[in-house]
Amino acid sequence: MGHALVESLAVGAAPVVTLTTDFGTADGYVAAMKGVILSMAPEAHLIDVSHLVPPHDVHHGAFVVHTMYRFFPEGSIHVAVVDPGVGGQRRGIAIVNSSGYFVGPDNGLFSYVLASEPPVVVVELSSVTTLGHPVSHTFHGRDVFAPAAARLAAGVPVAQLGSSIRDPLVFVPNLKVSGKGVDGEVLHVDRFGNLVTSIG
Amino acid sequence: MGHALVESLAVGAAPVVTLTTDFGTADGYVAAMKGVILSMAPEAHLIDVSHLVPPHDVHHGAFVVHTMYRFFPEGSIHVAVVDPGVGGQRRGIAIVNSSGYFVGPDNGLFSYVLASEPPVVVVELSSVTTLGHPVSHTFHGRDVFAPAAARLAAGVPVAQLGSSIRDPLVFVPNLKVSGKGVDGEVLHVDRFGNLVTSIG
Amino acid sequence: MGHALVESLAVGAAPVVTLTTDFGTADGYVAAMKGVILSMAPEAHLIDVSHLVPPHDVHHGAFVVHTMYRFFPEGSIHVAVVDPGVGGQRRGIAIVNSSGYFVGPDNGLFSYVLASEPPVVVVELSSVTTLGHPVSHTFHGRDVFAPAAARLAAGVPVAQLGSSIRDPLVFVPNLKVSGKGVDGEVLHVDRFGNLVTSIG
Repeated sequence: MGHALVESLAVGAAPVVTLTTDFGTADGYVAAMKGVILSMAPEAHLIDVSHLVPPHDVHHGAFVVHTMYRFFPEGSIHVAVVDPGVGGQRRGIAIVNSSGYFVGPDNGLFSYVLASEPPVVVVELSSVTTLGHPVSHTFHGRDVFAPAAARLAAGVPVAQLGSSIRDPLVFVPNLKVSGKGVDGEVLHVDRFGNLVTSIG
Repeated sequence: MGHALVESLAVGAAPVVTLTTDFGTADGYVAAMKGVILSMAPEAHLIDVSHLVPPHDVHHGAFVVHTMYRFFPEGSIHVAVVDPGVGGQRRGIAIVNSSGYFVGPDNGLFSYVLASEPPVVVVELSSVTTLGHPVSHTFHGRDVFAPAAARLAAGVPVAQLGSSIRDPLVFVPNLKVSGKGVDGEVLHVDRFGNLVTSIG
Repeated sequence: MGHALVESLAVGAAPVVTLTTDFGTADGYVAAMKGVILSMAPEAHLIDVSHLVPPHDVHHGAFVVHTMYRFFPEGSIHVAVVDPGVGGQRRGIAIVNSSGYFVGPDNGLFSYVLASEPPVVVVELSSVTTLGHPVSHTFHGRDVFAPAAARLAAGVPVAQLGSSIRDPLVFVPNLKVSGKGVDGEVLHVDRFGNLVTSIG
C-alpha cells in the first residue's frame, strides 16, 4: 500500500468531499447525507457534483465521476451513490488512487476511475463504518457511504474501513475495432447535445 | 428556556446553515439569501437542502425539513421558505429544539419538527432582524429570514430576535383509525416512486 | 485604479466565489470548475448561484448575476459562464467594481453590472491565467475562467490577469419612451410567474 493517501488524509486545508447521486434535489435525501458527514467531520468542505444522474443509471453516474475527479485537490473524497442493488448482496467499497478516495457501491460506478489508473488499494466497507442506528435497507448513502466518507475526512486510515479486495466490478463500454473502422457506444449526451463516445 | 442553544450558538466549528425553499434554481433568489447570510456571518457553512419544493407547497416543504434535520450537527440553523402568505399577516418565527434552530414563516412549515418534540422556545421574529433597506413585500427569505438566521449564526441569542410565542401553527396530516383499519394520507412521493404516508 | 480591490483581495474570511452557468446539473462540468478553483485556492468558499440558465441565454444569465451580486460580501468573486461564442474571438474579462470581481466571457453577460455602476477596472484575461494543460476550445469555464477566479481568490492582483480594456460589451434592453407611454421588454419570468421588465 505504498501511497501516502493510504495512511490517512494529510492535515491541512479542509478535506473536500464531493457528492454524486441520483437522488434528485426535491427531497431531503442528499441533505441527510450532508448532515451525517458534517456531524462526523465538521471541517469537511462539501461539494455537490450532481444529484440528477438519471435514477439507477450507473453508467451515467460512472461517466460523471470520471469527468470531474481529476480536477480536485489530491486527497479529495468522492462519494457516489447510484445504487439499484441497495439492500441486496452488492458490496460497498472505498478506493484509493493517486488522486484521492472514492466511496460507494461496488456496481461498476467507479469503472472509469479504475480503468484510468490502477488503484492503490480497494477495501470492502465493513459494517463498522455505519452509524449507531440500524442500517436502512434502502438508504446506504446516508447509513454506510456518508459515514465511511466522513471517517476518511476525519483522518481515519482506509484500512480501518474494511478488508482489501482485488476484484471491484468494472464494466467495459462496447468498442469493436475491425478492418472497416471502429464501432463504439455513445456514453453520454450533455445539455448542449454534445456526444461522448467510447472511441478514443 | 433551560437549554444551551437558547443562550447562543456554541463557539467552535463553523455554524451550519441549511436552506430549503421553493425558489427553484434558475434565478438569483437563493443566491441573494446566501449573500445576505455570508455578509452578516462570514463563517457560516451554507448547505443547500432543496430549492425544488413545489411552489407554495408547504406540506412538501415541511416533509423535507423533517426528513433531514436530525442528521445535522447540534446547533445547526435550518432556514426554510415556502411562503404563499408572504406580505400578509402571517408571522415569521424562530424555533429552538434540542437539535438546533429553525427559521421561516409561521405557516405550518415546521409542523413535523414541532410534532416530533416539544420546542424549547419559539419566538416571533421582530422587524429588528431585517436589513438596513425596507423589507420587500415579496421576498422575506432575503430580507427577514436570512438576516435572522445570520444573526443566530453570528452568536446572537434567539431572545434578541423577538418575543416568545406559544402558538406556532401546526397542521396535522389526515389520519383516521377505525375498526376496519387506518385511513391515512400520502405525504410524499419521492423520485424513485416510494410513498410516505401519515400512517406510522 | 484607486480602489482597494484592485490591489488584491483583503486577507481575512475565506474568499467567496459564486458560480452562475448554463451547464445544468446532470453532468460533471460544474464540478470540474469547482475542482480547479479548490486546487488553486483551497480556502475558497464556493457558492452555487444557478446552473440552470437556459443554454446560451446570455440575457437571462446577465439578469441572474445582476439580481444577486450586491448581497454578497465586498470582494466576492462572481464567475459567470454562459458562452455561446466559446472557442471564437470573444474575449474573456475580469471586472472590478465596488462590490467585488466578475469573471467570464465578454459577451454582454455583465451588462447590468456594468450599467449599474462604472467599473473600477476591466481587464482582458490573458492566456497566462490558464492551467498547465492546453486550453479546451469548448470549456473555458474550466480552463480560463475558473483559474482566473482562483487566482483572484488566492490574492493575485487583477492587473496580473491581463491588460486593461475600456470597451467591455454592454447590451441595452429595449426601452422606448414616447408621448403615449413607455414600451419595454420582459427581461425575465420567474418560477412564480412574476415578470421583470426593462421599465424602471
